[in-house]
Amino acid sequence: MEPLFFILTYIAVAASSISGALEARKHQMDIVGAITIAFVTAFGGGTMRDLLLGRTPIFWINDPWLTVATFIIAFFSFYKLERVSRPLLVAADAIGLGIFSILGATYALQLGISSIVAILMGVVTGIFGGVLRDVMSNRIPSVFGQSAELYATCSFIGTSLFTILYDINVNPLSASLIGATTIFLMRLLSVRFKMTLPSP
Amino acid sequence: MEPLFFILTYIAVAASSISGALEARKHQMDIVGAITIAFVTAFGGGTMRDLLLGRTPIFWINDPWLTVATFIIAFFSFYKLERVSRPLLVAADAIGLGIFSILGATYALQLGISSIVAILMGVVTGIFGGVLRDVMSNRIPSVFGQSAELYATCSFIGTSLFTILYDINVNPLSASLIGATTIFLMRLLSVRFKMTLPSP
Amino acid sequence: MEPLFFILTYIAVAASSISGALEARKHQMDIVGAITIAFVTAFGGGTMRDLLLGRTPIFWINDPWLTVATFIIAFFSFYKLERVSRPLLVAADAIGLGIFSILGATYALQLGISSIVAILMGVVTGIFGGVLRDVMSNRIPSVFGQSAELYATCSFIGTSLFTILYDINVNPLSASLIGATTIFLMRLLSVRFKMTLPSP
Repeated sequence: MEPLFFILTYIAVAASSISGALEARKHQMDIVGAITIAFVTAFGGGTMRDLLLGRTPIFWINDPWLTVATFIIAFFSFYKLERVSRPLLVAADAIGLGIFSILGATYALQLGISSIVAILMGVVTGIFGGVLRDVMSNRIPSVFGQSAELYATCSFIGTSLFTILYDINVNPLSASLIGATTIFLMRLLSVRFKMTLPSP
Repeated sequence: MEPLFFILTYIAVAASSISGALEARKHQMDIVGAITIAFVTAFGGGTMRDLLLGRTPIFWINDPWLTVATFIIAFFSFYKLERVSRPLLVAADAIGLGIFSILGATYALQLGISSIVAILMGVVTGIFGGVLRDVMSNRIPSVFGQSAELYATCSFIGTSLFTILYDINVNPLSASLIGATTIFLMRLLSVRFKMTLPSP
Repeated sequence: MEPLFFILTYIAVAASSISGALEARKHQMDIVGAITIAFVTAFGGGTMRDLLLGRTPIFWINDPWLTVATFIIAFFSFYKLERVSRPLLVAADAIGLGIFSILGATYALQLGISSIVAILMGVVTGIFGGVLRDVMSNRIPSVFGQSAELYATCSFIGTSLFTILYDINVNPLSASLIGATTIFLMRLLSVRFKMTLPSP
């Protein structure tokens, strides 16, 4: 599984880094702001996961290339991605959401933590980077608004599905792919059809 | 002591969860936002305490029922608590403040940490959930405003009292109850009589 | 080296504490807000560093005098520093930035972490307290704005210089002083000459 996790982490970090850098540009930040927000978005969820689970050193400390990659991607996203279509941004973000959620739940399950807490850990890992990005950009995290399309809900459903498959001994690789793909597609559909949650 | 801590944790988590969910509703968040803010409010202080003290895994990881309880309470608070009187909200929050403060100081003292740092840990544990709730709702934490009634001050005084009693070998159970009750009552009185701190 | 680190930590904490308390006063917070923001500014970066590196217990837990000093400095800054010239504030902040950055990189290098991650750790340690201060004061961290003078950039360049010197076996004490002084002076020059980064 390790090589798969390695690749998935890189994809999720790259996608989150793009999303962070572009968000920073929208808020009139400079390149340092963009790189910082990119790091926060890309590393935030996984860092929180590792801290909560006591998995030190944190995932990005032992792999300097992850830092280099985030740095370079943020730099180019900020200066070179002139016009970014919203679909591209949403897709990048949805990839990060799907992969980080499943990685979060997987690491929790590997430590023998109960399914329900593993699902929570998956959701935290999936959404925390984006929440931090929004908090540091001084706005209410976009995922919490009543007009927001489903976001944490996608993570919750996909991670629950993954955890159930894992618990009934489905091959972990298949379970991961099914879970991450569910989150990714559900997020795209939510945006496309403006699916929101009922208000009180 | 353990059964007592267990019960106190549940009470504090439940009270904080209600306070978080209702705060989220005030800010026009959806149910996902409400549940997230409820978790942040209920788990934030204790999580910070456990991270700082190196008490991993974090308190809510090994007890899935705490997660379930927070989830259910947040859900019902958001949809069912139609009209919430401000006194109820203040009381719920004051219970959380009192219990979390004393639990934070207790865990620090049990690790042999000096009294002054234990008091700081108590205050951090007590107020951090509410501070995070406000930061994520995109406003200056209410406890910091010049027009705010005493809040962290109640935690500081009650935790100091508890620590002194603990240091002079008063029965820990009695010391805990005296400390938590002091915080709770002092907070209620502050709100009732609009007690604030002097401005510079 | 230990006595040096000890003294540098106190200087950086004191400078950050002043900067935090004065920032809080600008935002009409009360004394509790000021003390809290002072603690967040002074302890935030080093706490994040210790959490990420797994160095528990956190640096301020074993030294109660650091807590006492921060408390007293914040108290007097809030009530007694009537008119603070901006140069003084900038200098205090720049001292904290320089010292915390180098301490962050040093602790990372001592754990055998690669240079590039050590630089990132230095920047995080250096800027995180100020970022937290701004987030809790409900504004976009000042270091990220397009009109902001160089800040994280100073930390990045000084920490990189320090890491290179350290890697080529320059005496650690000299390397630290050169790095911290570079950050401090570069920050002052940036403010004096309004140096900013190019926009996209």
